[in-house]
Amino acid sequence: MATRKFLLSDDRIPTHWYNIAADLPTPPPPPLHPATHQPIGPEALAPLFPMELIKQEVSTERYIEIPEEVRRIYSIWRPSPLFRATFLEQALQTPAHIYYKYEGVSPSGSHKPNTAVAQAYYNKQEGVKRIATETGAGQWGSSLAFACQIFGLECKVYMVRVSYNQKPYRRSLMQVWGGTVVPSPSPDTEAGRRILAEDPENSGSLGIAISEAVEDAAMREDTKYSLGSVLNHVLLHQTVIGQEAIAQMEMAGEYPDVVIGCAGGGSNAAGLIFPFMKDRLAGKTATRFLAVEPASCPSLTKGEYRYDFGDTAGLTPLMKMYTLGHTFMPPGIHAGGLRYHAMAPLICHLYDQGYIEARAYPQNACFEAATLFARTEGIVPAPESSHAIRAAIDEAIQAREEGRSRVILFNLSGHGLLDLQAYDDYLAGKLIDDFYPEEKVREAMKDLPVI
Amino acid sequence: MATRKFLLSDDRIPTHWYNIAADLPTPPPPPLHPATHQPIGPEALAPLFPMELIKQEVSTERYIEIPEEVRRIYSIWRPSPLFRATFLEQALQTPAHIYYKYEGVSPSGSHKPNTAVAQAYYNKQEGVKRIATETGAGQWGSSLAFACQIFGLECKVYMVRVSYNQKPYRRSLMQVWGGTVVPSPSPDTEAGRRILAEDPENSGSLGIAISEAVEDAAMREDTKYSLGSVLNHVLLHQTVIGQEAIAQMEMAGEYPDVVIGCAGGGSNAAGLIFPFMKDRLAGKTATRFLAVEPASCPSLTKGEYRYDFGDTAGLTPLMKMYTLGHTFMPPGIHAGGLRYHAMAPLICHLYDQGYIEARAYPQNACFEAATLFARTEGIVPAPESSHAIRAAIDEAIQAREEGRSRVILFNLSGHGLLDLQAYDDYLAGKLIDDFYPEEKVREAMKDLPVI
Repeated sequence: MATRKFLLSDDRIPTHWYNIAADLPTPPPPPLHPATHQPIGPEALAPLFPMELIKQEVSTERYIEIPEEVRRIYSIWRPSPLFRATFLEQALQTPAHIYYKYEGVSPSGSHKPNTAVAQAYYNKQEGVKRIATETGAGQWGSSLAFACQIFGLECKVYMVRVSYNQKPYRRSLMQVWGGTVVPSPSPDTEAGRRILAEDPENSGSLGIAISEAVEDAAMREDTKYSLGSVLNHVLLHQTVIGQEAIAQMEMAGEYPDVVIGCAGGGSNAAGLIFPFMKDRLAGKTATRFLAVEPASCPSLTKGEYRYDFGDTAGLTPLMKMYTLGHTFMPPGIHAGGLRYHAMAPLICHLYDQGYIEARAYPQNACFEAATLFARTEGIVPAPESSHAIRAAIDEAIQAREEGRSRVILFNLSGHGLLDLQAYDDYLAGKLIDDFYPEEKVREAMKDLPVI
Repeated sequence: MATRKFLLSDDRIPTHWYNIAADLPTPPPPPLHPATHQPIGPEALAPLFPMELIKQEVSTERYIEIPEEVRRIYSIWRPSPLFRATFLEQALQTPAHIYYKYEGVSPSGSHKPNTAVAQAYYNKQEGVKRIATETGAGQWGSSLAFACQIFGLECKVYMVRVSYNQKPYRRSLMQVWGGTVVPSPSPDTEAGRRILAEDPENSGSLGIAISEAVEDAAMREDTKYSLGSVLNHVLLHQTVIGQEAIAQMEMAGEYPDVVIGCAGGGSNAAGLIFPFMKDRLAGKTATRFLAVEPASCPSLTKGEYRYDFGDTAGLTPLMKMYTLGHTFMPPGIHAGGLRYHAMAPLICHLYDQGYIEARAYPQNACFEAATLFARTEGIVPAPESSHAIRAAIDEAIQAREEGRSRVILFNLSGHGLLDLQAYDDYLAGKLIDDFYPEEKVREAMKDLPVI
C-alpha cells in the first residue's frame, strides 16, 4: 500500500519562522507615507500594531524564534499533514506525483490561525486587551476570534454586511469562539455612521470594514488592529507551512519540481513557497513557483507594478504591489478570500524578479478541479484552494502529455465545508465566469497616486 | 511542551476488525422473524445485503480481515489522531488526564465512513451496481455517497424532508460526491406515493425514509440496502477506532480508567469501546465503559429490554434491545444522530450484563460542554459528540473533587461545522431541554410485539 500521509509529531513544529527578507537578492521597495511619499519608519505603525510585530515587519534576520506559548497553541493542529494524492493521480492517469499540504485541519479550517495566534500572542504580551479587525466571508475573522479566545482578548469583527447576511455560519463560528461580530457598515464607528446616514441599506465592502476596524483601534487605548494577509509579518508567520512541508517531502523521498499556492493577499502561497524559495535563491534548486489567482481579480497577471494603498479607502501606507487599483471592486466570485485588488509586496517583488510565475483561472474551471478532487481524495476544498488544485491538475496533465514524471506540491489552504452553496451553484450550472473586467480596472487605475 | 497528538502512520491502519461476539460470556439473544417469532437465518437478509456482510453479521470469529482495498481507502483519513486535551484539562483545573479520539478528520466529518467504505466494497465485490439508504440530518447519507463514489456505485439517498429543507448543506455534500438525494416521502416509491397522496405536505420521518429505501432495494435487482448503525457488522467495522486508540494510548504511556462514547444507534461508542472491552472481558482490566444518550431519547436509561423492530414502520426482523418503542418519535433535538428509539443489540447485551454504564443528558448541558471544548481545544464538536464531552468533563470534575487522577478517553465522533445553527440557538438561549417524554414512550410501548 503506497504511503499517502506524511505526519510529523508535535516536537517537529518549527522553532523559528523563516524570514525571506534575509535572502532576497535585492531589497523590496520600502512602504511610503501616504502624504509625503517618503519611506515610513516603524513608529508610523505603532498606533495600530504591537511593537514586536512592527519589528518583524521590517526585520532582515533570517530566522525569528517562535515563542514557546505560540508553539504550544500551534500544537492544537500543527504540524499539519502532507498527503500524496494517490487517488487523484490515478484518476488523471498521470506519471506525475502530486502532493498537498493540508491546512484545513486548523480549528477554523484554513491557514489563517498560523498568524492569528502569533498576532494575538504579541498583542497580549504588550498589554493590549482587545483587537479589532475586518472580515469578508469570515475565514480571517473566525481565525482571529479563536486566537483571541485562547489568550483571553476581546475580539471585535466588522463583517461585510452582505456576507454577514448570506454566510451566517462563519459568523456563528466567531461567536462560538467568543468574538463580537457586527455587520459593516455599523453604527459603532464614525465611518460606519456616516455611510449609514447616507444609505441605511448599504451592503458594505471590505474597504468600509477596514476603515471601521482601523478607526476602532485608533480611537481606543486598549485596542489594536490586526490584518490577515499582505503584510510581511503575516507572511512570515505562515512559513511554518513550508518548513514542515520540506521535512515531509524528505520523508516521502522526493523534492518538488513545482510548488503551487492560490493567491489573494498572498499569505498561504508565501507560507508554502518561501522556505523552498530559500534553496532556489541560493542556487541549489531549479524549483518553479506558481501563484494562482482568479481571472476576475488578476492582480499579478494583469495588474501594474506600482505604489498603491493596501485598502480601498486609501488609509494605509503606500506599498509597491501588482495592483488593479485600490478602488477596484472585483466581481462577487465564491473565492471571497482571493478578491483583493493587489498582492503582498514580498510576492510582488519575487514575481517582478522572475522567481515566481503567475496564472489566472475562471471559477468554473476551479470548481471542476475541486469537485474531481473531492470525488477522489475525499476532502471538499475551499473555493480559494480550488485555484491551486486547478493548476496542480494542469501541471499533472502536462506531465502526462509529455510522458515524463514531475513532482508537484500544492497548498490545500482550507476546506470548503462552510462554502457548500458554491458547490450547489457549480453543480447546478449557475456559476458565472467573470473574466478580466478591463473597463473597471482601467477606471480604478486612474485613482492611483503618481509616484 | 506536553505532547498533545498521538499519530500513527498509514501502515498502522488495523489489518482486522475485532468481533466482540467471539468474547462475550453469553451469546446475545438472536434476531427473530417478525411474523413467526422464530430465529431467522442469514437467507432472510439476502434480498437486502450482500452475503459477505450477512456472514459478518452472524460471525463468531474473533478477527475478520480488512480487505486491502478498504485499508487503502481508509488511508484517506485513517489512522485518525488521538489528542490529549491539555487545554481543556487546564480550564477544568483537573488532575484527570483527558484523551479524545477524533473521527472528524474523515471526508464527511464523522466516524460513518468507516463502515460506509466497507459496505460499498462488499456490495461492489458481489456485483451490486446501486445502493439505497435513508438519512436524517445527512451524516450517514453523505458518508455512503462518498464511499459509493470511490467504488463507482450509484447511491440513492432518501432524506427526511424536513432535514432536506432545513439542512441543505449535507445534501450539497452528498451531491458533490455524486449521490442522488430526494426528499422523503418521495414519488419514487410505492410507500412514498401512498403517503404523499394522503398528505402532500408530509414532512417525513426516518421510519418513512427507511421504508422507501428498503422498498427501492427490494424492487430492483441491481440494488441493495445499507444501514449506518445498530447492526453487528456496522459495529464491527467501527472497531478500527478502538484498535488504533489502544496503540495511541500506549504511545501516551497510559491506559484509560473510563472510555466514553455518545450513543444513538451505538456504532461510534462500540467502535471505541469494544477493543478495550476485550481486555475487561478477559479479566485483565477494570476499565469502566460509559454510553451517553440524550435525556429526550433515553433508550438505555429509561427503555425496556425486549424484542422490538429496528425501524419505525416495523419491517425489520425483531431484535432484543433497550427500546422506547419503535413508533416513539423523539423531540427534535439538534443531535439528530442520537434520535433512535432503541440501541444496537450488542451494546444492549453488554449493558444488560453490567459491562457498560449509561447516562443521559439534556441538550443545553451538552452544548455548554461543547462550547467550552471549542473555546479550549479549538475543534467545534458535532451535537452528537457533545454528549460524550459532557460526560468526560463530569468525570474530570469528579476526579478534581475527589482529588485523584483519572485517565479519561472519549470518542469525538465528528465535528459540528455543518451544525452551526445549533450553536447559534444555544448561544441565543433558544435551546429547549426536552426531558424524558414519559407519556409518549408509554404510548409507543403499547405497540411492541409480545414475545
